[in-house]
Amino acid sequence: MAKSKKEFRPKARAPRGFPDRFGAGLKAEREMLARISDVYESYGFDPLETSAFEYTDALGKFLPDVDRPNEGVFSLQDDDGQWMSLRYDLTAPLARYVAEHYDALPKPFRRYAMGPVWRNEKPGPGRYRQFTQVDADTVGAPAPHADAEMCVLFAEVIEAAGIPPGDFVIRVSNRKIVDGLFERLGLAAEEDAGRRLNVMRSMDKFDRLGEEGVRLLLGPGRKDDSGDFTEGARLGNREIDAVIAFLASTVSGDDAATLGRLGAIVGDSPAGAAGIAELEAIIRQAPEERRSSIVVDCSIIRGLEYYTGPVFEADILWRPDEEPVRLGSVGGGGRYDGLVKRFKGVEVPAVGISVGVSRLLAALEFRTDAFEPLTRPVVVLALENDRMPEYQALAAELRAAGLRAEVYLGGANFAKQLKYADKRNAPVAVIQGEDERAKGVVTIKDLVLGAQLSREIEDNAEWREAQRAQVEVARCDLVAETMNVLDRHKSRRG
Amino acid sequence: MAKSKKEFRPKARAPRGFPDRFGAGLKAEREMLARISDVYESYGFDPLETSAFEYTDALGKFLPDVDRPNEGVFSLQDDDGQWMSLRYDLTAPLARYVAEHYDALPKPFRRYAMGPVWRNEKPGPGRYRQFTQVDADTVGAPAPHADAEMCVLFAEVIEAAGIPPGDFVIRVSNRKIVDGLFERLGLAAEEDAGRRLNVMRSMDKFDRLGEEGVRLLLGPGRKDDSGDFTEGARLGNREIDAVIAFLASTVSGDDAATLGRLGAIVGDSPAGAAGIAELEAIIRQAPEERRSSIVVDCSIIRGLEYYTGPVFEADILWRPDEEPVRLGSVGGGGRYDGLVKRFKGVEVPAVGISVGVSRLLAALEFRTDAFEPLTRPVVVLALENDRMPEYQALAAELRAAGLRAEVYLGGANFAKQLKYADKRNAPVAVIQGEDERAKGVVTIKDLVLGAQLSREIEDNAEWREAQRAQVEVARCDLVAETMNVLDRHKSRRG
Repeated sequence: MAKSKKEFRPKARAPRGFPDRFGAGLKAEREMLARISDVYESYGFDPLETSAFEYTDALGKFLPDVDRPNEGVFSLQDDDGQWMSLRYDLTAPLARYVAEHYDALPKPFRRYAMGPVWRNEKPGPGRYRQFTQVDADTVGAPAPHADAEMCVLFAEVIEAAGIPPGDFVIRVSNRKIVDGLFERLGLAAEEDAGRRLNVMRSMDKFDRLGEEGVRLLLGPGRKDDSGDFTEGARLGNREIDAVIAFLASTVSGDDAATLGRLGAIVGDSPAGAAGIAELEAIIRQAPEERRSSIVVDCSIIRGLEYYTGPVFEADILWRPDEEPVRLGSVGGGGRYDGLVKRFKGVEVPAVGISVGVSRLLAALEFRTDAFEPLTRPVVVLALENDRMPEYQALAAELRAAGLRAEVYLGGANFAKQLKYADKRNAPVAVIQGEDERAKGVVTIKDLVLGAQLSREIEDNAEWREAQRAQVEVARCDLVAETMNVLDRHKSRRG
Repeated sequence: MAKSKKEFRPKARAPRGFPDRFGAGLKAEREMLARISDVYESYGFDPLETSAFEYTDALGKFLPDVDRPNEGVFSLQDDDGQWMSLRYDLTAPLARYVAEHYDALPKPFRRYAMGPVWRNEKPGPGRYRQFTQVDADTVGAPAPHADAEMCVLFAEVIEAAGIPPGDFVIRVSNRKIVDGLFERLGLAAEEDAGRRLNVMRSMDKFDRLGEEGVRLLLGPGRKDDSGDFTEGARLGNREIDAVIAFLASTVSGDDAATLGRLGAIVGDSPAGAAGIAELEAIIRQAPEERRSSIVVDCSIIRGLEYYTGPVFEADILWRPDEEPVRLGSVGGGGRYDGLVKRFKGVEVPAVGISVGVSRLLAALEFRTDAFEPLTRPVVVLALENDRMPEYQALAAELRAAGLRAEVYLGGANFAKQLKYADKRNAPVAVIQGEDERAKGVVTIKDLVLGAQLSREIEDNAEWREAQRAQVEVARCDLVAETMNVLDRHKSRRG
């Protein structure tokens, strides 16, 4: 058909902030999700899958740092006039589910969930608008026992995902202690909500900007490297000192000392004291072998506004080679006793954790041994168009032996087929031309050895030598000889 | 906090047409996706995941039977003014991906994908607006070899999903043969596109309405049981006869005869002849053991408008007990040589299949042995609030032995805990109260036997007898005795 000049041609591009993912990284993510699910299930959590959409009013508005007109979510109006939004996390849909099915559920109710969530944020480098979370939540159990279990479970899933203990830490703080701090700062009143949010955002930057930067943000304001000025919270010096002491309260390796320091800052307030008692109980309940992985650290903030008690954050400490790399948080969570109440009017205690799978995968890129790579397929060449069933039969035999095998389907050109096998990184090509078929044999070509030899070839004699990269075997030895070559590759790598 | 009467309480409800899914059914779906992926990978298909969104212009409009103002998709406008839509299938995003990365990809390019797709349809019983598909596509390989491979692969994945050969069939038709039919009907002109669509929709109802119903739809129109009248396509009697002969051309168990009949109807038209040749090649290339699973059947239509050649449909034939149940299509596919061309202007041949996972699961509900159910957890009772670490240690030991185990976290009330274990369908409860701890023992309660005995109990003597549903063992025998009870359950079921 002649190309019409008038027809509309859309530009082929993925929407901004929505990357495509392919091959081995995707395999690794699935393997990771499976491992984490297994741990969740072993703790008695059952799987739940809600859909991508919730009614906007049911989802609520709890996102931090919203820089978008429609408050960080993707929304559209259904044909009956109701607004629906794509879920921004897996917790808000759980609250709706629990409220909807409350009487039928066992209580406490343990469920896990995995899947994409969407944030309508400004796209930018490394800032995606769709990402995968895998969560576990216990609804109907008050602090601190369920919180303590969550911390241990959190450590267990991070380890199951491939990060050894010692290379990560679960930091635990408590929103109630932060409330205690606000009481002390004189910011506990209803009308101070805006300022509290401002102070919390400044505190959240402690690990990135350090004491000096946060002091500016809490006080007069701060100009960043690009020259942009951020308005300050305008606290007094004594208040700023209290916030900094609070953020720097962690005594490495000594939770009791940390809790002592926190007690000195917020112990006088009922909220602060209650928060400290909850943290003490969480720490006390961690089993011996997990104790070094779970630490009290009130410099973590966790932005979501629905938290009401303990909050958690999983941080990767691991540094590849000598160059220290800040890998940062791979997940968080906390207690949200008010989220089901939004629907039911009565408080339903709840606590959960959420693992950010792409962050965890990024952390694991430094550990190339964490997951099996996607196996490369054996390519069966198809040299004669009318012999396709025979080539497919060769591939089927290889598959039946547990190998990945594919038949080339792009035409009979030999050079093109080898080039394809090369692009596929195929370890082996299987060749059966007219001659081979007549003799009842197949040629097994070791493409790894072949590539190596061809790099070394300088003359014709060597070229003949290079022929040892391929071997002719009886048709019935197809599988055995292919396995031989693959084993050779494996032992050379090992 | 006192309940404020003024606060807004959203109603807890899932959006219309977006059901929640929980527990064993979800587990089964994941297992099925894993099995299907394994088959796709064994054939050399690599995984690809595009995001939920595509730019609306890139997605194109190919959905059949659209009864919605925004043409069957969910769309919204990004903050830069561009319209984005949620993908309605996994094929259109693949076409965009291939066009975007054409030069870098190996050709032919085999990829598989799985995930949710969204249709903005009127919700109704069994009509969901989000469902899961798992697809395989080969891009860059012309008919018929890649099509033949697709049919065999289709059969293989349906079997891997748990449907035995003989209980399903892959039906194959060809859009070109339908084009040949339209030539014969005198409906091949550009301006007849609307009438062709109308005729195809009528043809698509052949399996449901039978010859009489379709004759009415092709002719004067048809009133259905509810009294609604559907306008007819107003073909003449000779044309209607041709369409019916076409739809009824399948000779069971004899593809050659079917092809002969089709040749008599459309063999004169170049498109029809080409389509028949492609079907012949597909059938010829199927390996012996798959030949009875792959049949030529031109009564299948497949609604998506982008198909250009062979089309496939996987149908379940299986009938539970005596009552015949029409389980119908669990997936489809076909060749779409024009879809990448939309972007690139040059034709890129492509063919694929799509498995509808919820349909397949529904079909498998009749085969209760197809998947392992979600194992029920052992419940460790927590009778003393301050002994939580010890209860958690009991659960951890059971988990280390590969069991699911959970600690009750809802408070110290004994009766409530047993009621919970019952609601969880727990097979075993582990009990360690003050006395047991002092003696260094735990009580293992067989809840299955317990429930059975309690149904039979009539007097006190029997009640004492019922005590054999629980046994006190040394703390160190926790795992062994729990395993004993679970083995007993298993052998009783077996």
